[in-house]
Amino acid sequence: MPELRKEPVSGRWVIIATERALRPSDFIAVPPPTIKGNFCPFCEGNEDKTPPEIMAYRERDTRPNTRGWRVRVVPNKFPALVIEGGLNKRGDGIYDIMNGIGAHEVIIECPQHKISLTSLPPAHVQEIIWTYRDRLVDLKKDKRLIYGMLFKNVGAVAGASLEHTHTQLIVTPIVPLVVASEMEGSMAFYKYRGRCLFCDMINQELSNGSRMVLEGEHFVTFAPYAARFPFELWILPKNHSSHFENIQRSEVEELAETLRAALCKLEGALEQPPYNFIIHTSPFDQPELAHYHWHIEIIPRLTRVAGFEWGTGFYINPVPPENAAEYLKKVEVPPC
Amino acid sequence: MPELRKEPVSGRWVIIATERALRPSDFIAVPPPTIKGNFCPFCEGNEDKTPPEIMAYRERDTRPNTRGWRVRVVPNKFPALVIEGGLNKRGDGIYDIMNGIGAHEVIIECPQHKISLTSLPPAHVQEIIWTYRDRLVDLKKDKRLIYGMLFKNVGAVAGASLEHTHTQLIVTPIVPLVVASEMEGSMAFYKYRGRCLFCDMINQELSNGSRMVLEGEHFVTFAPYAARFPFELWILPKNHSSHFENIQRSEVEELAETLRAALCKLEGALEQPPYNFIIHTSPFDQPELAHYHWHIEIIPRLTRVAGFEWGTGFYINPVPPENAAEYLKKVEVPPC
Repeated sequence: MPELRKEPVSGRWVIIATERALRPSDFIAVPPPTIKGNFCPFCEGNEDKTPPEIMAYRERDTRPNTRGWRVRVVPNKFPALVIEGGLNKRGDGIYDIMNGIGAHEVIIECPQHKISLTSLPPAHVQEIIWTYRDRLVDLKKDKRLIYGMLFKNVGAVAGASLEHTHTQLIVTPIVPLVVASEMEGSMAFYKYRGRCLFCDMINQELSNGSRMVLEGEHFVTFAPYAARFPFELWILPKNHSSHFENIQRSEVEELAETLRAALCKLEGALEQPPYNFIIHTSPFDQPELAHYHWHIEIIPRLTRVAGFEWGTGFYINPVPPENAAEYLKKVEVPPC
Repeated sequence: MPELRKEPVSGRWVIIATERALRPSDFIAVPPPTIKGNFCPFCEGNEDKTPPEIMAYRERDTRPNTRGWRVRVVPNKFPALVIEGGLNKRGDGIYDIMNGIGAHEVIIECPQHKISLTSLPPAHVQEIIWTYRDRLVDLKKDKRLIYGMLFKNVGAVAGASLEHTHTQLIVTPIVPLVVASEMEGSMAFYKYRGRCLFCDMINQELSNGSRMVLEGEHFVTFAPYAARFPFELWILPKNHSSHFENIQRSEVEELAETLRAALCKLEGALEQPPYNFIIHTSPFDQPELAHYHWHIEIIPRLTRVAGFEWGTGFYINPVPPENAAEYLKKVEVPPC
């Protein structure tokens, strides 16, 4: 009998198919479309092929927009939002509109043409995570802007147009609906039970264990109870914190290892699947919140899954998260 | 300057790219993946290759599960939910779970191997619409079930696994999150302004005209103000009604023409694009509602659009709905 499980943060119900549950090998058959083009504007030496850099972690005595960088941030060449101008919030009859002000940046994760973050040593991944933090801290100063979303598209199916490993940052003057729903759901829980829903979730996942994939001193990685997608993984800090940009040094060190391990496990089980990851954090204009807990959601984009969820808002997951966790636990993480 | 527009029903903000707006021809380049397989279980003569029929519009004196039908409803061979059993709603620590009880049916729209509803004469499309209604009216009697969602996936990219034109019906013991959000958003508007948001929207679209594509006595078809997707279209009845299954005969007659015309225009402008359409209606357990208005959303699935919206919940639409409407208005609807 299939199960209907409720994702407690958003309130979304997901259909978990328990009887014809699929295995990792069911998702590997079709070779995914590849990303075209030989020339890579993100590679070292091509610094003049991107807009001028916003910041970089680079070797001493090297100049901006030249070689010598390790992690480099540039504006998106085709930005969805523009940084110059006023918001000019206004009505249009019953509708609401404002100017598309915001930031759209690209974090180029390494100078070599690597196509996966898992090819990078943990010390390098730490610098990527510091870059994420640095950009949020900087953009937060702009009072027009309310929310910063860091996300990664890997593979053409997941929306990537360049294969060189990179992360995008979109900073907007509004709170995205997904985050607003999470804020509302976790606030409802907090009002009723007086605790953080995510902290409760971590406790239950640790004591239950069947969906847990990785546990460290500072982070847990598990397949969520009402996973929308096969092999979906969530990474949460054990210590309650609502804003990603307040991450501590010891956490950055462990998160670099955790992120690499989680992605290695997905790559191992599913043979380099396309995926998205998104950092869910609190809006800039909110103080530290007792009810919200920042986290990372990793969503493999497996082509055999029907486009059922589009528009309908129904998700049917043919891999129970307990099965996904069992497979992923067994995948060994190769040394870098 | 891009625009941020708010979709007033869900509260979702959409980025509308105004400067590098794309044209229909920008979406046609890539031939979409086709659906494999020569044998079609939905064609006349193959009635024994589907589960036994639930109902059919058929010629006099023909027996169920034999030739002679015009529209035929069968259970989905691989149902996401099952009809037999109790809900057994229960807790699992902080989580909520129930049995996956529900219905998952397929409405086979014609006996011939047609791949588009637009190949069918309007009188035949009327019978398809009556079938939609009949199934909702019947399933509504089951007090375990709360919501019926009718949707259509056309083309492999849109999640279809068979090309023979068909509609799916999923009936669930819960209200899908998308609908719950719409109910909430439209209720907030109703509480504040005392009117139906959708009725206001129809009035504004009719008086503005720039997004209007089709207008009849009973229905309007327009590109919504904060369209998430290029060439997204909404069809709404002019007379306020919260439940699709209360549709009147004169409305069915016009909706058959309207639906065919709207799909012909999309097929003409975009060369047979994959698409989804979904009928948004009120839950079974609700009486006629003053704040909610049933409608149809048609979403072309155009491959050149990056998978940006996945997970992030941000939508970037490179075709302003005013441009989409302008292109679609010009497409002539061929006679059937």
